Parts: sequence; C-alpha cells; structure tokens
Amino acid sequence: MTDDFRLANSTLPITPRLRILFPAGLRLGPGKIELLAAVGETGSISAAGRALGMSYRRAWLLVDEANRMFKEPLVLASAGGSQGGGAQLTNLGRRVIAAYRAAEEGSKAAIAEAFAGLAESIETEARPQPE
Amino acid sequence: MTDDFRLANSTLPITPRLRILFPAGLRLGPGKIELLAAVGETGSISAAGRALGMSYRRAWLLVDEANRMFKEPLVLASAGGSQGGGAQLTNLGRRVIAAYRAAEEGSKAAIAEAFAGLAESIETEARPQPE
Repeated sequence: MTDDFRLANSTLPITPRLRILFPAGLRLGPGKIELLAAVGETGSISAAGRALGMSYRRAWLLVDEANRMFKEPLVLASAGGSQGGGAQLTNLGRRVIAAYRAAEEGSKAAIAEAFAGLAESIETEARPQPE
Repeated sequence: MTDDFRLANSTLPITPRLRILFPAGLRLGPGKIELLAAVGETGSISAAGRALGMSYRRAWLLVDEANRMFKEPLVLASAGGSQGGGAQLTNLGRRVIAAYRAAEEGSKAAIAEAFAGLAESIETEARPQPE
C-alpha cells in the first residue's frame, strides 16, 4: 500500500493519507493511484483489480473516474468483452502517478516536521471508548 | 472549511485533503480539526457542533476520539447534563490544531509543486460518466 508507510526518519507512529480534490467533486487518493500503477504492471484492468481485491466493475469505474479528471486519458483500454481486453497506462498516466507520489512524499515530510514536537504525546495503545 | 482553499500561488484547480492515520485506526482530518477549533472559539462542544451542522452526539464522539489519540486530552469538558456544559481546549489541543494546519500547508505546497507541470491537463469541466 502506498499509504502504509511510517514517517521517514521519525519514530512517529502516524501516517498520512492524501486525497486531492479535483473539479466536479472527483478525488484522487491512494486507492486510484495504486490501481493505476497495477494497470501499468499487469497490462489489464481486470488483472489490476484482482491484484487489489476489487471487482472488475469497481476497477473499471475507478479507472474511468481517473480518466475523467484529466483532458486526456490516463489508461487506454482495448475492446475485449465484458471481462476486458488489454489496457495500458499513457504517458500522462505515468506522470500523474509520479506527481501524486511526489506530493505524498512532501506531505509525509511536512507531517513529520509539524508533529515532531508532539511525538511523546501520541497515544500508541488503543483505549476503549467510554460508555 | 480549512480544506476548501485553492493552492497558493497557483492556478491549479485542485485542493488537498489530508488525513493522518493514528495508532488503533484513528484518523485525524479536517473535520476533527475544524471541530476542535470551534470548541476553542465557542467554549462548548454542543455550540461547536451546531456551528458545523452536526448533532451534539456526533460532536461529542468526535471530540472523544480526538482525545483518545493522545496521552492527554485535547478538550476538557465540565459536567453539564446531556446537552453539555462548558468545554475548553487544552494547551495540547491548541498545539495539535497548529501542527495539523502546518502539515496541511506543507502538503498544499508539495501538491502545487508536484502537479505544476500537469496544470494544463487537468479537466475543469465535469464530463458525464459513459453508459
């Protein structure tokens, strides 16, 4: 998981989860980025979805939503029936993944810096909610 | 809304939404931070909840969850019946709000930098989802 990391150079037990709001209410977050990367690795929307434990339908909808955030597609799919043919990342798709990951690294560094003085105050044991 | 800003010094039509995962699955995001700030401004959990359009019960649960993320409370509430008495931010509460906002500013800058080269490619008109 791209969002499942500990803060670099830090003992802070907290991790960022970055969502970017695009126009028309669309959101780009770790789930779509992971799916796009898996499409690039597998060459298939259905295989990418399977690798991430999601249905073909859900994977297709997320890829479609990602494509609608930009003026050109991030993923090009060839026709291949209901279970999908091949799919490939476009150059723009690769640039978007890289940009998101760079933004995530920057956020990670910003959180580590901002919360460094609070490290001792963070509760690391789960406490039950009172009645 | 603290997360409803445009990226500074940028024409990018995208905004960050930063959630920080704490141990035991607890999350600190813009909603809890806004609520904590409103408690500080109003001196009351119920008034803070009303200002943000949430029920007293929901506001109380979110404050309780925020308190359980740290070893000391962020909000101290005095007993006052089911509709709540007074409440005040602790010094730690004020430091957590400031740390979150600093982290959010850093994330905003990181996104602006990472996506600057993609500004022209971002779709600003909503396109309908195909059938």
